[in-house]
Amino acid sequence: MIILFTDFGLGGPYLGQVKAVLARLAPGKTVIDLFSDAPSCRPQESAYLLAAYAEEFPPGSVFLAVVDPGVGGARPPVAVLIDGRWFVGPGNGLFEPLLRRGHQVEGFRLIPSPTARLSASFHGRDLFAPAAARLALAGRAAAGMEPFSLPRFQEWPDDLSRVVYIDHFGNALTGLRANCLAPGTLLEIGGERLSRLRTFGDAPPGGAFWYENANGLAEIAVNMGNASQALKISIGDIVGISTT
Amino acid sequence: MIILFTDFGLGGPYLGQVKAVLARLAPGKTVIDLFSDAPSCRPQESAYLLAAYAEEFPPGSVFLAVVDPGVGGARPPVAVLIDGRWFVGPGNGLFEPLLRRGHQVEGFRLIPSPTARLSASFHGRDLFAPAAARLALAGRAAAGMEPFSLPRFQEWPDDLSRVVYIDHFGNALTGLRANCLAPGTLLEIGGERLSRLRTFGDAPPGGAFWYENANGLAEIAVNMGNASQALKISIGDIVGISTT
Amino acid sequence: MIILFTDFGLGGPYLGQVKAVLARLAPGKTVIDLFSDAPSCRPQESAYLLAAYAEEFPPGSVFLAVVDPGVGGARPPVAVLIDGRWFVGPGNGLFEPLLRRGHQVEGFRLIPSPTARLSASFHGRDLFAPAAARLALAGRAAAGMEPFSLPRFQEWPDDLSRVVYIDHFGNALTGLRANCLAPGTLLEIGGERLSRLRTFGDAPPGGAFWYENANGLAEIAVNMGNASQALKISIGDIVGISTT
Repeated sequence: MIILFTDFGLGGPYLGQVKAVLARLAPGKTVIDLFSDAPSCRPQESAYLLAAYAEEFPPGSVFLAVVDPGVGGARPPVAVLIDGRWFVGPGNGLFEPLLRRGHQVEGFRLIPSPTARLSASFHGRDLFAPAAARLALAGRAAAGMEPFSLPRFQEWPDDLSRVVYIDHFGNALTGLRANCLAPGTLLEIGGERLSRLRTFGDAPPGGAFWYENANGLAEIAVNMGNASQALKISIGDIVGISTT
Repeated sequence: MIILFTDFGLGGPYLGQVKAVLARLAPGKTVIDLFSDAPSCRPQESAYLLAAYAEEFPPGSVFLAVVDPGVGGARPPVAVLIDGRWFVGPGNGLFEPLLRRGHQVEGFRLIPSPTARLSASFHGRDLFAPAAARLALAGRAAAGMEPFSLPRFQEWPDDLSRVVYIDHFGNALTGLRANCLAPGTLLEIGGERLSRLRTFGDAPPGGAFWYENANGLAEIAVNMGNASQALKISIGDIVGISTT
Repeated sequence: MIILFTDFGLGGPYLGQVKAVLARLAPGKTVIDLFSDAPSCRPQESAYLLAAYAEEFPPGSVFLAVVDPGVGGARPPVAVLIDGRWFVGPGNGLFEPLLRRGHQVEGFRLIPSPTARLSASFHGRDLFAPAAARLALAGRAAAGMEPFSLPRFQEWPDDLSRVVYIDHFGNALTGLRANCLAPGTLLEIGGERLSRLRTFGDAPPGGAFWYENANGLAEIAVNMGNASQALKISIGDIVGISTT
């Protein structure tokens, strides 16, 4: 299974162009759109989001992850094997939380094929998708890469106390794992301090709260309402942590 | 064929997470996104929309339908077989028009697997998708369910005289079946009374009208224009019915 | 491979309904969404966009292209074979740049099946999708069509000096092929004259420029910014061409 995690956006040709490459080079492999609207040009927020959502996929999965504002610049194109799952994309921090939480890690640098075209602006199609397809179909020997010491981002925190995604319902996902927060933790955002509840029905209509979402992240929500609008939340906003 | 009808939204991970479950449990089955932006948290409007669009799919199709503001609460998780098509989702009225229009109906309650995780907020992934996958692959014996008398919503009308969807072009779909409206019927919305035409080209540029859309619903449109903007129409708006 | 190029929008049922037809009539064929948000009801802008993005697909590909404001009216439903690729859709100019740039061209008119339903408003589902599926699965003899002299749009330019698409990042794609523009060409839009650069990193943060995008089109962009917002660009805007 090949899983796409990108900031390409829902419209436009980019996802389709990448999928056409995958269909040609890895025919028959299932391709799943996990996120097509990861935080645009924000590798750090995207990294904590990816780490939370990658967990439910089995070993052998290949993630094609592209949030790459530096395309055409100096960041290396990489692949990394973390506890049996492959991640292919730019070496710009996008895999930092995964690297830190992983147990068995091997890093690689992608080597562009000397015969393939390589556009200056679309490495997702021209470099990352072919590597992911070959990894999924034939394993590491086929993918065109060499062992590499991945750039690390040691100053990044273990959990990110920022909003990393706002979903269709207005719920605000944070980069905080709920099970790393002490009982009684309050989250502060938009001038409000929010308590933890189990799920939506435990809050009054219009009431704001936080809860552990279905992928383990602390998520800020409003029962029968839109948290993002009610609390004026944007991606990247800082989330305060306090206790009662 | 498994057909998805949800209010998950186009972005975000939810559709992809559900499809990953389907790919694992029902490999090789075709999965179609019918609606990913059904009226958000509005089971009633969604129900009349689903009934109109389910018809064109052949017997044996499995619909995974999730518009479920009460997730984690008391509504039962159900499956229902209606004239050869399966529908899996929350028992909150989403299947009421289908039940009423169907000839042969069997109802079931889903039984969560004791070994599977069941999050409080994402039964689409954890409960409905596994059941739909098993129904599509191996039939009712595999799906984990027991006969059940589905909750009914007797006070709901046979057709809903409200706007149930606004499409990309600004056309407003109603919950009214065109062939249930008498000849000469006018539809009233946004302060205007609209006549029935055959299709767009029969109206002058900028002219508002209603017509029978390609799935049998009365749809409000403006030739070479955006009806939703021109007439200030929102989902849930009441549609008046009168005759000349 | 069947490639979809439509203005159906990302939401709503239309893409799914078309894909359900393709899955039934051409089971096992890969279907790629190239554009689902082609310029709405603008066949001319869409035509230059399609021509630029069709090139990377191999011979044997079947394009189902629907930007069809005249549906139900007089424009003929056509199929055209251009240098080994099939294009199916309305004969309203959508294939004009492809026809002009092609070397080997054969035109056909689609003949609706006398037994199939044909709605007045959704030929994408009822006429074009069945023809594309049959072409992809069984070739021209199966598709229901006859040789036809396609309507031509001789007054259209070879390249369109207008904005033909604005992507998720705010970049504005023009209908101009970069390799047809002389060295030193400046593009004028929103009151600014923009120079050509190789890629984003060659501009200062916030700087506007144009470059050859990954499909050969001249594209207007802002490094680490949103060109569409910064320069107030809309689809259809005229792009001025001058030299230093």
